[in-house]
Amino acid sequence: MGHMVKLYFGKLGGLIPVVIQDWRSGEILMLGFMNQQAFNKTLETGKVHFWSRSRKVLWMKGESSRRVQLVKEVLVDCDRDALVVKVAQKGGAACHGGYRSCFFRRVSKEGLVPIGNERVFDPKTVYPEKQGMGKRKIVRSTKS
Amino acid sequence: MGHMVKLYFGKLGGLIPVVIQDWRSGEILMLGFMNQQAFNKTLETGKVHFWSRSRKVLWMKGESSRRVQLVKEVLVDCDRDALVVKVAQKGGAACHGGYRSCFFRRVSKEGLVPIGNERVFDPKTVYPEKQGMGKRKIVRSTKS
Repeated sequence: MGHMVKLYFGKLGGLIPVVIQDWRSGEILMLGFMNQQAFNKTLETGKVHFWSRSRKVLWMKGESSRRVQLVKEVLVDCDRDALVVKVAQKGGAACHGGYRSCFFRRVSKEGLVPIGNERVFDPKTVYPEKQGMGKRKIVRSTKS
Repeated sequence: MGHMVKLYFGKLGGLIPVVIQDWRSGEILMLGFMNQQAFNKTLETGKVHFWSRSRKVLWMKGESSRRVQLVKEVLVDCDRDALVVKVAQKGGAACHGGYRSCFFRRVSKEGLVPIGNERVFDPKTVYPEKQGMGKRKIVRSTKS
């Protein structure tokens, strides 16, 4: 589907921002970027694909973690340069830090504070090659 | 608030993508970009400010239409390079085309089709200086 849809990738050098939203709850799970190829692949396969800005490769969300995102609906904005993709999130978590959503902290006077989401999985068991991830200083929602 | 919050603006030349979400319904209303100044101004005033990539100016959402967005909560993603801002949308519509949300069309085999949102306002009455806006070929949800 979508072969007749023209999007405008020019403003960000070939990329558009894509919001991933849980199709049932409406929760925003993450934000990524697609180029034309990632957009086509997402429509063809029904699984969300992104362009990785850091690794400079096309990748399927969940290709290492198995937490794939099944496409339910793709919405296009008025300027045709941004998407909302409503998905069924496999495995219950989108964030590579183990949280359901990448947006698990809010801005407060004290800085960033967790909004109460528990970790769904321990990233060390899913991405064993990324042991350095603790350096990202992920704020835990509860202290053990 | 938020003076202790460090965000990473470097990946997009000083900008981060910002998802605007209705704080009650969870509907995604639009996507814009902020630089550090727009982020600060949003926190200081409690009203959403963006950086306009086309006009290259700081602007407050609603400064011409009065459809301002009152900040209810600001969420930061794991990489600190994207935001979700939950807002109360004044005037019932975020899109300059008159729709409640800028994401008023979905991708289908037939191309882009409206998802059924009626226009909340007629853009000609709100932005009289933008009479050329019809050139954007906005798809109406109903034919008159």
